[in-house]
Amino acid sequence: MPIKIGVADTTFAVIDMFASVEKAINDAQEKVVVTRVTVPGIKDLPVACLKLLKTCECDIVIALGMPGKEVIDKQCAHEASIGIQHAMLLAEKHILEVFVHMDEGKDAKDLISIAKNRAYKHTLNALALATGKSLSRNAGKGIRQGRQDVGSIDKKEGKR
Amino acid sequence: MPIKIGVADTTFAVIDMFASVEKAINDAQEKVVVTRVTVPGIKDLPVACLKLLKTCECDIVIALGMPGKEVIDKQCAHEASIGIQHAMLLAEKHILEVFVHMDEGKDAKDLISIAKNRAYKHTLNALALATGKSLSRNAGKGIRQGRQDVGSIDKKEGKR
Amino acid sequence: MPIKIGVADTTFAVIDMFASVEKAINDAQEKVVVTRVTVPGIKDLPVACLKLLKTCECDIVIALGMPGKEVIDKQCAHEASIGIQHAMLLAEKHILEVFVHMDEGKDAKDLISIAKNRAYKHTLNALALATGKSLSRNAGKGIRQGRQDVGSIDKKEGKR
Amino acid sequence: MPIKIGVADTTFAVIDMFASVEKAINDAQEKVVVTRVTVPGIKDLPVACLKLLKTCECDIVIALGMPGKEVIDKQCAHEASIGIQHAMLLAEKHILEVFVHMDEGKDAKDLISIAKNRAYKHTLNALALATGKSLSRNAGKGIRQGRQDVGSIDKKEGKR
Amino acid sequence: MPIKIGVADTTFAVIDMFASVEKAINDAQEKVVVTRVTVPGIKDLPVACLKLLKTCECDIVIALGMPGKEVIDKQCAHEASIGIQHAMLLAEKHILEVFVHMDEGKDAKDLISIAKNRAYKHTLNALALATGKSLSRNAGKGIRQGRQDVGSIDKKEGKR
Repeated sequence: MPIKIGVADTTFAVIDMFASVEKAINDAQEKVVVTRVTVPGIKDLPVACLKLLKTCECDIVIALGMPGKEVIDKQCAHEASIGIQHAMLLAEKHILEVFVHMDEGKDAKDLISIAKNRAYKHTLNALALATGKSLSRNAGKGIRQGRQDVGSIDKKEGKR
Repeated sequence: MPIKIGVADTTFAVIDMFASVEKAINDAQEKVVVTRVTVPGIKDLPVACLKLLKTCECDIVIALGMPGKEVIDKQCAHEASIGIQHAMLLAEKHILEVFVHMDEGKDAKDLISIAKNRAYKHTLNALALATGKSLSRNAGKGIRQGRQDVGSIDKKEGKR
Repeated sequence: MPIKIGVADTTFAVIDMFASVEKAINDAQEKVVVTRVTVPGIKDLPVACLKLLKTCECDIVIALGMPGKEVIDKQCAHEASIGIQHAMLLAEKHILEVFVHMDEGKDAKDLISIAKNRAYKHTLNALALATGKSLSRNAGKGIRQGRQDVGSIDKKEGKR
Repeated sequence: MPIKIGVADTTFAVIDMFASVEKAINDAQEKVVVTRVTVPGIKDLPVACLKLLKTCECDIVIALGMPGKEVIDKQCAHEASIGIQHAMLLAEKHILEVFVHMDEGKDAKDLISIAKNRAYKHTLNALALATGKSLSRNAGKGIRQGRQDVGSIDKKEGKR
Repeated sequence: MPIKIGVADTTFAVIDMFASVEKAINDAQEKVVVTRVTVPGIKDLPVACLKLLKTCECDIVIALGMPGKEVIDKQCAHEASIGIQHAMLLAEKHILEVFVHMDEGKDAKDLISIAKNRAYKHTLNALALATGKSLSRNAGKGIRQGRQDVGSIDKKEGKR
């Protein structure tokens, strides 16, 4: 039976991250059915994700969002994140929050690179979580999405 | 069967946004039944919206609110937003939060323009979500309500 | 059948707002049964209100509280407000939060005036909501409790 | 039948407030059964309180905690308070939050005095709430726990 | 019957704290079954913990996380903590949050020491809570995880 992955994204975002999700799924060569829903902004994501998990019976959902640069945008992102936390607990399934803040990049090119990398890598995380592949080999290893891994600072770990 | 749209607004607001909701519905020429409830302030909106979704069986709700300029008003808006998030998750339906902050505009005229544009555009979003019309064509396109769209910053997207 | 209104207030407050609630109810000449509960502070209000709505089967509850001036007091008010939001959603009924911040007034006299006016006006709101009287006539009209109404800034509205 | 009072405290605190709870119960000469649970820190209190209310069937719970002085400690206290709010709403019973911030006192002696006074007085509040004794006589009277009552600022009240 | 302890950790962390959990369990010589789940970041911990408590029927869960140094990281930690609070209340079981902030240590060596000490000591706390061993002997004694205990400031306590 194929894995059912839900993807929720927004019209507010200035980069299409869905393409990177699709690329990761194709590259992973897993049998996956994707259900996509697009909502206006990040505060519409939590209920969209919950519906993907409950009504559409997705195994896991990827929530793609791009909070703006203003104080009010940070506030919205916080409210959306709290909503996503509750949605996960209600559905007892994971929602991988792939948020890229519009002031995260040095410039537009950097921001696009962060967004695509983060969406790509978190899609692989979603596939691992949905198929029950353990991530424990990488626990405490300073893995990052959107930029390079920072690695472990634990000497004994470093020597392996 | 007509779409059932709930609208909740407040007596605290200094602009009547409901008229813009009605205008958008008329312009869209969809078969819509509107149920409107007016409450004192934004913190009364979440439960009003929940009742519209559950008791009145609306398909979607538009929450119109105008937080004031003071720190305490921002706090109230945050609490209202958290309540709206929970209401959506309890009802498993969308509530489009159309909040216009009283310090958002350059002047009264600008504020009125933002409020009307935001209410109008989000009503179209509500109609799309309620009728199952996909918004994915506009995902990542920098769509805004209340002001002009900013567009996508993704070069490849830009060239289309 | 009379309207059942619950009132929750605190021993922490420095002004008795309950008297203004009673005055508004008497002035309104509605058939009302009032159930009053007093708790130590504002963080005890949410569960007290929920019990008034569920166990005592009140139609609506008025929560009277006076947050202090310190940062920690503002934090408590925020936590109480979040609790009140949840209580409303659990009961699917309104709780009108009548909070008067101890630093809101110019002096003691002003603070007393704000508190009494806010409690009085919100009691009338509670009566309207409980009896199904529509407040839509005043939507977007800049209605305030505790001080004077600011009115609508919408020109066309102003001309009516 | 005796009143069942739950008490939850922490090993993080630097003052034993439980002794003051016991003293208040003894002084009040009510028939009380106390169930005590000690957890590591304040963020462990909400679920401990919920279990006291639901599994142990306590009528009311007193949550004794001492948040530290750092920003992160204030954050923890906020999260614990939100958890306590939810626990109350889930159990539909009161949890009296007796938090003493480590930077509240002028010195160690003052802090101890605040802690003992607050725990003592809130235990009396708990007994009143659990036995249905009305606190309304003291509504709006500026009652404080941990320090002296500030009294009412309402003139007419003052003259009584 | 052995105690069932769940452990959730992250690939984002830069130190492997799970080893310290295992060490504490071995040192304690209790009959324990450990179920471990690794997720990408701290915001994925709450639902992972809830699943460990509900689906895997763990008696208690230890949540190991390392929030980063940036403002956004602090925000994520706050959202994760709120999620963990809710997860506990939904499961009515404890989740010991073992978070080590990346700016907590003086240097990498100090941070590693804090992380290992905190994970080790909280595992002993988890064992105590899961086996019903009372921690009340240490209530108000200023017990710390990650650094040295600060002790009680209560003179009478100090003299014991």
